[in-house]
Amino acid sequence: MVALRDRDILFIGIDGGGSKCRASIVDADNRLLGTGVSGPANPLHGYAQTIDSIVRSAALALADANLPPETLGELVAGVGLAGVNMPRLYNEMASWAHPFKRMYLTTDQHSACLGAHRGDGAVIIAGTGSVGYAWVNGESTLLGGHGFPHGDKGSGAWMGMEGVKYLLMALDGLAEDSRLKSELLKMLESSTANEVFEKIGGKSSSHYARLAVPVIECAEAGDPVAVAIVRDGAAYISDLADKLLELKPPRLSMIGGLAPRLRQWLAPHVVERLAEPLDAPEIGCVYFAQQCLVEEGHGAETSAEKSETSALFG
Amino acid sequence: MVALRDRDILFIGIDGGGSKCRASIVDADNRLLGTGVSGPANPLHGYAQTIDSIVRSAALALADANLPPETLGELVAGVGLAGVNMPRLYNEMASWAHPFKRMYLTTDQHSACLGAHRGDGAVIIAGTGSVGYAWVNGESTLLGGHGFPHGDKGSGAWMGMEGVKYLLMALDGLAEDSRLKSELLKMLESSTANEVFEKIGGKSSSHYARLAVPVIECAEAGDPVAVAIVRDGAAYISDLADKLLELKPPRLSMIGGLAPRLRQWLAPHVVERLAEPLDAPEIGCVYFAQQCLVEEGHGAETSAEKSETSALFG
Repeated sequence: MVALRDRDILFIGIDGGGSKCRASIVDADNRLLGTGVSGPANPLHGYAQTIDSIVRSAALALADANLPPETLGELVAGVGLAGVNMPRLYNEMASWAHPFKRMYLTTDQHSACLGAHRGDGAVIIAGTGSVGYAWVNGESTLLGGHGFPHGDKGSGAWMGMEGVKYLLMALDGLAEDSRLKSELLKMLESSTANEVFEKIGGKSSSHYARLAVPVIECAEAGDPVAVAIVRDGAAYISDLADKLLELKPPRLSMIGGLAPRLRQWLAPHVVERLAEPLDAPEIGCVYFAQQCLVEEGHGAETSAEKSETSALFG
Repeated sequence: MVALRDRDILFIGIDGGGSKCRASIVDADNRLLGTGVSGPANPLHGYAQTIDSIVRSAALALADANLPPETLGELVAGVGLAGVNMPRLYNEMASWAHPFKRMYLTTDQHSACLGAHRGDGAVIIAGTGSVGYAWVNGESTLLGGHGFPHGDKGSGAWMGMEGVKYLLMALDGLAEDSRLKSELLKMLESSTANEVFEKIGGKSSSHYARLAVPVIECAEAGDPVAVAIVRDGAAYISDLADKLLELKPPRLSMIGGLAPRLRQWLAPHVVERLAEPLDAPEIGCVYFAQQCLVEEGHGAETSAEKSETSALFG
């Protein structure tokens, strides 16, 4: 991605989200030395847990790399986090007395996009939530991703919510029976609307996202109710892709837990444009830290090494 | 409704909901003596606040009736509350060391239905939430009303949520502009998706229900986006009505804050069947208490007075 003057430098890329925090340590030539995975790291859901998960994932990655724990203070960290597009959360995280040599903070969308394309491009992230992001000519664009339940159409949580809405109507005799009804009841270990409510009412987006599995499986099996839900969600994701493609990104990728199964439901012209992500989001965090270092004047004068380093994570 | 042997008996009907608690005191001939209104009384949102609101509304009704406060202990209370169809909340409220002579507890749907029809019938309650209820030949049927945001289609909160979903898409350029967009932005004092999120994200159903006003106003003015939302919600309410009519209730009423404006959007054959409610829900609570007293053996032997008393709240 970029070439650095200091050849002894070690980087750690940390990608934090609502369910997991992933860390990867690489050297100045972007050789992967070790990885670590810890728990949730979404500052919107708690500062203490976020910094705890970041430090844990880093400690695990150091151990995996056979590096002593005190190496933590020598690492240059790139950290991509959900929620830090909100100034309050960005400032809270940026003022953390972190244990790294340096820490560069950005949104999880930006680091995912950098990882997927090693430069300009656009990503659709479809997992528990859904969001579109583009980084083109130094400008970022964020589309959707307004959260559950008012936004994030086409996401796992949205599919689960639509499934539950249908299920409650079907249990009232106000919607047709279907395979989806019985699969959702099985998953919720329920047989009445009251039991469904007790299991899922007021629960978080990740609880609803678990129900996306039966919705998309039933759609794949041709159940018309599930097909209608998945088509509606996928149409929104295709619209999101079209809007991102208007920005002329050199590449477009779809990532996140739902991406592999959502792909076949997208508009054909969108599927044609989808490219495999080149690297994982935590490697995008490393690229971000390297860009920041270069911008601060730590970069090499020659660009000869660029093509070499950028191919390392193919 | 029913005739009672004890002519000195005083009744209080108390209808508790998510925003208000209404009390009415009547004598044995169902003559209205006084009314009182206090704050929220939904046991799902707190036991202490519920009993506080019940006692306050009763004290206000006593004062309105020019009765001394200590009369509280002589009142036979009928109490209709949201949430008490859940056994846990019913038991919690039923074991309250209440200050009345007797207290008879039922769901707010049951008391609303008794008030609307002075006997068998069906009601659709459309306000912040939506629900269908029928009491026919001693059997109760509850339809819908599964709560926000997974249920309560066609309600004020649902309309507000659909409005916000559309608004966020329109702000992303993923939905057409409309009058509804500008009216919602005005009401939310916002101009960007982030501002909308700050105003409404994670808020309660009553916050969303306030947004139903611009949605239904725009629909009445012919805005196609708003029309589509209101039509979708009203179609569900019509389905709910059809399902209730299958139970052959002698009467069907629609009550709640949204009822007057939703009426014109319902299927014509449903509108034809709608009858004006005879009495308010808190009077339905009185009827419920009277029924319970009669069942316990306090009723008159003759039915001569029945027709007289049942006409008092026309």
